[in-house]
Amino acid sequence: MPEDWSLTAEEQRAWRRYVEMQHGLERHLAQHLQREFGMSEADFEILVNLSESSNGRMRAVELADATQWEKSRLSHHLTRMEKRGLIARQPGENRYPEVVLTEAGWSAIKACAPANAARVRQLFVDVLGADRLATLSEIAGDVLAAIDQHQKSDSSVGDRGR
Amino acid sequence: MPEDWSLTAEEQRAWRRYVEMQHGLERHLAQHLQREFGMSEADFEILVNLSESSNGRMRAVELADATQWEKSRLSHHLTRMEKRGLIARQPGENRYPEVVLTEAGWSAIKACAPANAARVRQLFVDVLGADRLATLSEIAGDVLAAIDQHQKSDSSVGDRGR
Repeated sequence: MPEDWSLTAEEQRAWRRYVEMQHGLERHLAQHLQREFGMSEADFEILVNLSESSNGRMRAVELADATQWEKSRLSHHLTRMEKRGLIARQPGENRYPEVVLTEAGWSAIKACAPANAARVRQLFVDVLGADRLATLSEIAGDVLAAIDQHQKSDSSVGDRGR
Repeated sequence: MPEDWSLTAEEQRAWRRYVEMQHGLERHLAQHLQREFGMSEADFEILVNLSESSNGRMRAVELADATQWEKSRLSHHLTRMEKRGLIARQPGENRYPEVVLTEAGWSAIKACAPANAARVRQLFVDVLGADRLATLSEIAGDVLAAIDQHQKSDSSVGDRGR
Protein backbone atom coordinates (compact mmCIF):
# COMPACT_ATOMS: atom_id res chain seq x y z
CA MET A 1 0.00 0.00 0.00
CA PRO A 2 1.60 3.36 -0.93
CA GLU A 3 2.33 5.55 2.04
CA ASP A 4 0.28 8.56 0.91
CA TRP A 5 -2.90 6.56 1.55
CA SER A 6 -2.41 7.27 5.23
CA LEU A 7 -4.77 9.62 7.05
CA THR A 8 -3.89 13.11 8.23
CA ALA A 9 -4.31 13.78 11.94
CA GLU A 10 -7.53 15.65 11.21
CA GLU A 11 -8.96 12.91 9.01
CA GLN A 12 -8.13 10.32 11.63
CA ARG A 13 -9.79 12.42 14.31
CA ALA A 14 -12.96 12.73 12.21
CA TRP A 15 -13.01 8.99 11.45
CA ARG A 16 -12.57 8.09 15.12
CA ARG A 17 -15.22 10.53 16.18
CA TYR A 18 -17.62 8.92 13.71
CA VAL A 19 -16.76 5.44 15.03
CA GLU A 20 -17.23 6.68 18.58
CA MET A 21 -20.66 8.08 17.71
CA GLN A 22 -21.62 4.80 16.08
CA HIS A 23 -20.56 2.73 19.10
CA GLY A 24 -22.21 5.19 21.47
CA LEU A 25 -25.53 5.07 19.61
CA GLU A 26 -25.49 1.29 19.26
CA ARG A 27 -24.70 0.81 22.91
CA HIS A 28 -27.27 3.29 24.13
CA LEU A 29 -30.10 1.95 21.96
CA ALA A 30 -29.19 -1.65 22.84
CA GLN A 31 -29.11 -0.93 26.58
CA HIS A 32 -32.44 0.79 26.33
CA LEU A 33 -34.09 -2.13 24.48
CA GLN A 34 -32.60 -4.58 26.95
CA ARG A 35 -33.54 -2.66 30.06
CA GLU A 36 -37.04 -1.62 29.05
CA PHE A 37 -38.13 -4.63 27.00
CA GLY A 38 -35.68 -7.48 27.72
CA MET A 39 -34.91 -7.41 24.01
CA SER A 40 -31.50 -7.69 22.34
CA GLU A 41 -30.54 -5.72 19.23
CA ALA A 42 -30.61 -8.99 17.31
CA ASP A 43 -34.16 -9.79 18.50
CA PHE A 44 -35.22 -6.31 17.49
CA GLU A 45 -33.68 -6.58 14.02
CA ILE A 46 -35.52 -9.85 13.32
CA LEU A 47 -38.83 -8.52 14.64
CA VAL A 48 -38.57 -5.29 12.62
CA ASN A 49 -37.86 -7.19 9.42
CA LEU A 50 -40.75 -9.60 9.92
CA SER A 51 -43.20 -6.90 10.98
CA GLU A 52 -42.45 -4.92 7.82
CA SER A 53 -42.88 -7.87 5.49
CA SER A 54 -46.21 -8.23 3.71
CA ASN A 55 -47.87 -10.46 6.33
CA GLY A 56 -45.40 -10.96 9.17
CA ARG A 57 -43.67 -13.83 7.41
CA MET A 58 -40.48 -14.18 5.41
CA ARG A 59 -38.46 -16.99 3.96
CA ALA A 60 -35.35 -17.76 6.00
CA VAL A 61 -33.19 -16.87 2.98
CA GLU A 62 -34.85 -13.47 2.66
CA LEU A 63 -34.23 -12.84 6.35
CA ALA A 64 -30.58 -13.81 5.95
CA ASP A 65 -30.34 -11.38 3.07
CA ALA A 66 -32.06 -8.56 4.96
CA THR A 67 -29.93 -8.95 8.09
CA GLN A 68 -26.71 -9.96 6.29
CA TRP A 69 -26.04 -12.44 9.09
CA GLU A 70 -24.18 -15.70 8.64
CA LYS A 71 -26.58 -18.59 8.12
CA SER A 72 -25.53 -20.34 11.36
CA ARG A 73 -25.91 -17.18 13.44
CA LEU A 74 -29.40 -16.61 12.03
CA SER A 75 -30.45 -20.18 12.60
CA HIS A 76 -29.24 -20.20 16.24
CA HIS A 77 -30.89 -16.92 16.94
CA LEU A 78 -34.20 -17.98 15.42
CA THR A 79 -34.14 -21.11 17.57
CA ARG A 80 -33.81 -18.98 20.69
CA MET A 81 -36.58 -16.63 19.58
CA GLU A 82 -38.82 -19.59 18.77
CA LYS A 83 -38.31 -20.96 22.30
CA ARG A 84 -39.38 -17.57 23.68
CA GLY A 85 -42.53 -17.74 21.58
CA LEU A 86 -41.73 -14.64 19.49
CA ILE A 87 -41.56 -16.39 16.12
CA ALA A 88 -42.45 -19.76 14.62
CA ARG A 89 -40.87 -21.65 11.75
CA GLN A 90 -43.22 -23.20 9.24
CA PRO A 91 -42.98 -24.73 5.81
CA GLY A 92 -44.24 -22.11 3.33
CA GLU A 93 -45.28 -22.24 -0.31
CA ASN A 94 -43.12 -24.64 -2.32
CA ARG A 95 -41.97 -26.00 1.06
CA TYR A 96 -39.36 -23.27 1.56
CA PRO A 97 -38.97 -22.79 5.32
CA GLU A 98 -40.64 -19.56 6.47
CA VAL A 99 -40.29 -17.53 9.64
CA VAL A 100 -43.53 -16.14 11.04
CA LEU A 101 -44.28 -13.57 13.73
CA THR A 102 -46.43 -15.02 16.51
CA GLU A 103 -48.97 -12.94 18.40
CA ALA A 104 -46.40 -12.50 21.18
CA GLY A 105 -43.91 -11.37 18.53
CA TRP A 106 -46.37 -8.79 17.17
CA SER A 107 -47.03 -7.48 20.69
CA ALA A 108 -43.32 -7.25 21.42
CA ILE A 109 -42.50 -5.24 18.30
CA LYS A 110 -45.53 -2.99 18.76
CA ALA A 111 -44.33 -2.21 22.28
CA CYS A 112 -40.67 -1.56 21.60
CA ALA A 113 -40.53 -0.05 18.09
CA PRO A 114 -42.10 3.32 19.08
CA ALA A 115 -39.86 3.59 22.14
CA ASN A 116 -36.80 2.85 20.02
CA ALA A 117 -37.89 5.39 17.39
CA ALA A 118 -38.31 7.98 20.13
CA ARG A 119 -34.70 7.41 21.26
CA VAL A 120 -33.51 7.68 17.65
CA ARG A 121 -35.32 11.00 17.37
CA GLN A 122 -33.94 12.36 20.64
CA LEU A 123 -30.35 11.29 20.15
CA PHE A 124 -29.97 11.53 16.40
CA VAL A 125 -32.70 13.03 14.22
CA ASP A 126 -33.41 16.09 16.37
CA VAL A 127 -29.73 16.58 17.23
CA LEU A 128 -28.79 16.70 13.54
CA GLY A 129 -31.71 18.79 12.26
CA ALA A 130 -33.15 18.48 8.75
CA ASP A 131 -30.18 19.88 6.78
CA ARG A 132 -27.49 17.79 8.39
CA LEU A 133 -29.75 14.74 8.26
CA ALA A 134 -30.09 15.23 4.49
CA THR A 135 -26.31 15.61 4.17
CA LEU A 136 -25.74 12.45 6.17
CA SER A 137 -28.21 10.54 4.06
CA GLU A 138 -26.37 11.66 0.93
CA ILE A 139 -23.01 10.69 2.52
CA ALA A 140 -24.37 7.24 3.34
CA GLY A 141 -25.51 6.74 -0.25
CA ASP A 142 -22.09 7.74 -1.59
CA VAL A 143 -20.20 5.50 0.86
CA LEU A 144 -22.45 2.53 0.08
CA ALA A 145 -21.85 3.07 -3.64
CA ALA A 146 -18.07 3.20 -3.03
CA ILE A 147 -18.19 -0.05 -1.03
CA ASP A 148 -20.18 -1.68 -3.78
CA GLN A 149 -17.63 -0.55 -6.35
CA HIS A 150 -14.75 -1.91 -4.27
CA GLN A 151 -16.41 -5.21 -3.66
CA LYS A 152 -16.79 -5.64 -7.38
CA SER A 153 -13.13 -4.84 -8.02
CA ASP A 154 -12.03 -7.07 -5.09
CA SER A 155 -13.89 -10.01 -6.51
CA SER A 156 -12.58 -9.42 -10.03
CA VAL A 157 -9.01 -9.38 -8.60
CA GLY A 158 -9.92 -12.65 -6.88
CA ASP A 159 -11.12 -14.11 -10.16
CA ARG A 160 -7.94 -13.17 -11.95
CA GLY A 161 -5.27 -14.02 -9.47
CA ARG A 162 -5.97 -15.99 -6.33
CA MET B 1 -43.96 7.53 24.98
CA PRO B 2 -46.05 10.24 23.21
CA GLU B 3 -46.90 9.41 19.65
CA ASP B 4 -45.36 12.50 18.08
CA TRP B 5 -41.90 11.12 18.92
CA SER B 6 -42.26 8.84 15.92
CA LEU B 7 -40.15 9.37 12.81
CA THR B 8 -41.42 10.73 9.51
CA ALA B 9 -40.88 8.53 6.48
CA GLU B 10 -37.98 10.73 5.41
CA GLU B 11 -36.32 10.69 8.84
CA GLN B 12 -36.66 6.95 9.00
CA ARG B 13 -35.14 6.61 5.54
CA ALA B 14 -32.15 8.75 6.57
CA TRP B 15 -31.65 6.80 9.81
CA ARG B 16 -31.77 3.47 7.99
CA ARG B 17 -29.41 4.68 5.33
CA TYR B 18 -26.97 5.72 8.05
CA VAL B 19 -27.27 2.30 9.75
CA GLU B 20 -26.78 0.61 6.40
CA MET B 21 -23.61 2.62 5.77
CA GLN B 22 -22.33 1.74 9.21
CA HIS B 23 -22.93 -1.98 8.74
CA GLY B 24 -21.48 -1.86 5.23
CA LEU B 25 -18.29 -0.15 6.39
CA GLU B 26 -17.85 -2.43 9.39
CA ARG B 27 -18.36 -5.52 7.32
CA HIS B 28 -16.08 -4.41 4.52
CA LEU B 29 -13.23 -3.36 6.83
CA ALA B 30 -13.61 -6.53 8.92
CA GLN B 31 -13.57 -8.79 5.86
CA HIS B 32 -10.50 -7.02 4.57
CA LEU B 33 -8.60 -7.40 7.88
CA GLN B 34 -9.60 -11.04 8.08
CA ARG B 35 -8.74 -11.91 4.51
CA GLU B 36 -5.47 -10.01 4.23
CA PHE B 37 -4.12 -10.39 7.78
CA GLY B 38 -6.11 -13.15 9.51
CA MET B 39 -7.13 -10.51 12.01
CA SER B 40 -10.57 -9.91 13.55
CA GLU B 41 -11.95 -6.44 14.28
CA ALA B 42 -11.58 -7.24 17.98
CA ASP B 43 -7.90 -8.17 17.56
CA PHE B 44 -7.36 -4.96 15.64
CA GLU B 45 -9.04 -2.82 18.27
CA ILE B 46 -6.86 -4.24 21.05
CA LEU B 47 -3.66 -3.88 19.01
CA VAL B 48 -4.46 -0.27 18.02
CA ASN B 49 -5.12 0.70 21.62
CA LEU B 50 -1.92 -0.90 22.90
CA SER B 51 0.24 0.45 20.07
CA GLU B 52 -0.94 3.99 20.81
CA SER B 53 -0.29 3.77 24.54
CA SER B 54 2.94 5.27 25.83
CA ASN B 55 5.04 2.08 25.59
CA GLY B 56 2.83 -0.65 24.17
CA ARG B 57 1.37 -1.51 27.55
CA MET B 58 -1.88 -0.71 29.33
CA ARG B 59 -3.59 -1.80 32.50
CA ALA B 60 -6.45 -4.21 31.82
CA VAL B 61 -8.89 -1.70 33.33
CA GLU B 62 -7.70 1.04 30.97
CA LEU B 63 -8.16 -1.31 28.04
CA ALA B 64 -11.68 -2.16 29.23
CA ASP B 65 -12.39 1.54 29.42
CA ALA B 66 -10.95 2.28 25.96
CA THR B 67 -12.82 -0.55 24.23
CA GLN B 68 -15.98 -0.33 26.37
CA TRP B 69 -16.15 -4.13 26.32
CA GLU B 70 -17.61 -6.21 29.13
CA LYS B 71 -14.89 -7.47 31.47
CA SER B 72 -15.50 -11.13 30.60
CA ARG B 73 -15.42 -10.50 26.84
CA LEU B 74 -12.13 -8.63 27.19
CA SER B 75 -10.60 -11.31 29.37
CA HIS B 76 -11.56 -14.13 26.98
CA HIS B 77 -10.32 -12.24 24.00
CA LEU B 78 -7.00 -11.39 25.63
CA THR B 79 -6.51 -15.07 26.48
CA ARG B 80 -6.93 -15.97 22.81
CA MET B 81 -4.54 -13.23 21.69
CA GLU B 82 -2.01 -14.32 24.29
CA LYS B 83 -2.11 -17.88 22.92
CA ARG B 84 -1.40 -16.49 19.45
CA GLY B 85 1.61 -14.63 20.85
CA LEU B 86 0.29 -11.14 20.02
CA ILE B 87 0.14 -9.88 23.60
CA ALA B 88 1.35 -10.91 27.04
CA ARG B 89 -0.15 -10.30 30.46
CA GLN B 90 2.24 -9.19 33.19
CA PRO B 91 1.97 -7.74 36.64
CA GLY B 92 2.73 -4.01 36.35
CA GLU B 93 3.54 -1.31 38.88
CA ASN B 94 1.57 -1.73 42.11
CA ARG B 95 0.85 -5.27 40.86
CA TYR B 96 -2.07 -4.15 38.66
CA PRO B 97 -2.28 -6.61 35.77
CA GLU B 98 -0.97 -5.08 32.55
CA VAL B 99 -1.38 -6.07 28.92
CA VAL B 100 1.75 -5.74 26.78
CA LEU B 101 2.30 -5.88 23.02
CA THR B 102 4.80 -8.60 22.09
CA GLU B 103 7.15 -8.25 19.13
CA ALA B 104 4.73 -10.31 17.06
CA GLY B 105 1.96 -7.96 18.16
CA TRP B 106 3.97 -4.91 17.05
CA SER B 107 4.68 -6.52 13.68
CA ALA B 108 1.02 -7.38 13.22
CA ILE B 109 -0.24 -3.87 13.91
CA LYS B 110 2.51 -2.29 11.77
CA ALA B 111 1.42 -4.50 8.88
CA CYS B 112 -2.32 -4.05 9.06
CA ALA B 113 -2.87 -0.50 10.35
CA PRO B 114 -1.69 1.25 7.13
CA ALA B 115 -3.77 -1.10 4.97
CA ASN B 116 -6.82 -0.45 7.11
CA ALA B 117 -6.24 3.32 6.99
CA ALA B 118 -5.99 3.10 3.20
CA ARG B 119 -9.43 1.43 3.05
CA VAL B 120 -10.86 4.09 5.38
CA ARG B 121 -9.49 6.75 3.03
CA GLN B 122 -10.85 5.09 -0.11
CA LEU B 123 -14.30 4.27 1.21
CA PHE B 124 -14.93 7.12 3.59
CA VAL B 125 -12.54 10.08 3.84
CA ASP B 126 -12.12 10.64 0.09
CA VAL B 127 -15.78 9.86 -0.63
CA LEU B 128 -16.93 12.52 1.84
CA GLY B 129 -14.39 15.23 1.01
CA ALA B 130 -13.13 17.78 3.55
CA ASP B 131 -16.36 19.77 4.03
CA ARG B 132 -18.66 16.85 4.62
CA LEU B 133 -16.04 15.19 6.82
CA ALA B 134 -15.97 18.31 9.00
CA THR B 135 -19.79 18.30 9.16
CA LEU B 136 -19.82 14.64 10.15
CA SER B 137 -17.24 15.23 12.83
CA GLU B 138 -19.40 18.02 14.24
CA ILE B 139 -22.49 15.78 14.07
CA ALA B 140 -20.66 13.05 15.95
CA GLY B 141 -19.66 15.48 18.69
CA ASP B 142 -23.25 16.69 19.07
CA VAL B 143 -24.70 13.15 19.14
CA LEU B 144 -22.13 12.03 21.72
CA ALA B 145 -22.99 15.03 23.89
CA ALA B 146 -26.72 14.17 23.61
CA ILE B 147 -26.06 10.55 24.60
CA ASP B 148 -24.02 11.73 27.56
CA GLN B 149 -26.83 14.02 28.63
CA HIS B 150 -29.40 11.21 28.36
CA GLN B 151 -27.26 8.78 30.27
CA LYS B 152 -27.05 11.26 33.10
CA SER B 153 -30.82 11.78 33.18
CA ASP B 154 -31.44 8.00 32.86
CA SER B 155 -29.27 7.30 35.86
CA SER B 156 -30.80 10.10 37.91
CA VAL B 157 -34.25 8.60 37.17
CA GLY B 158 -32.78 5.28 38.32
CA ASP B 159 -31.51 6.86 41.52
CA ARG B 160 -34.86 8.39 42.29
CA GLY B 161 -37.26 5.65 41.46
CA ARG B 162 -36.13 2.12 40.67
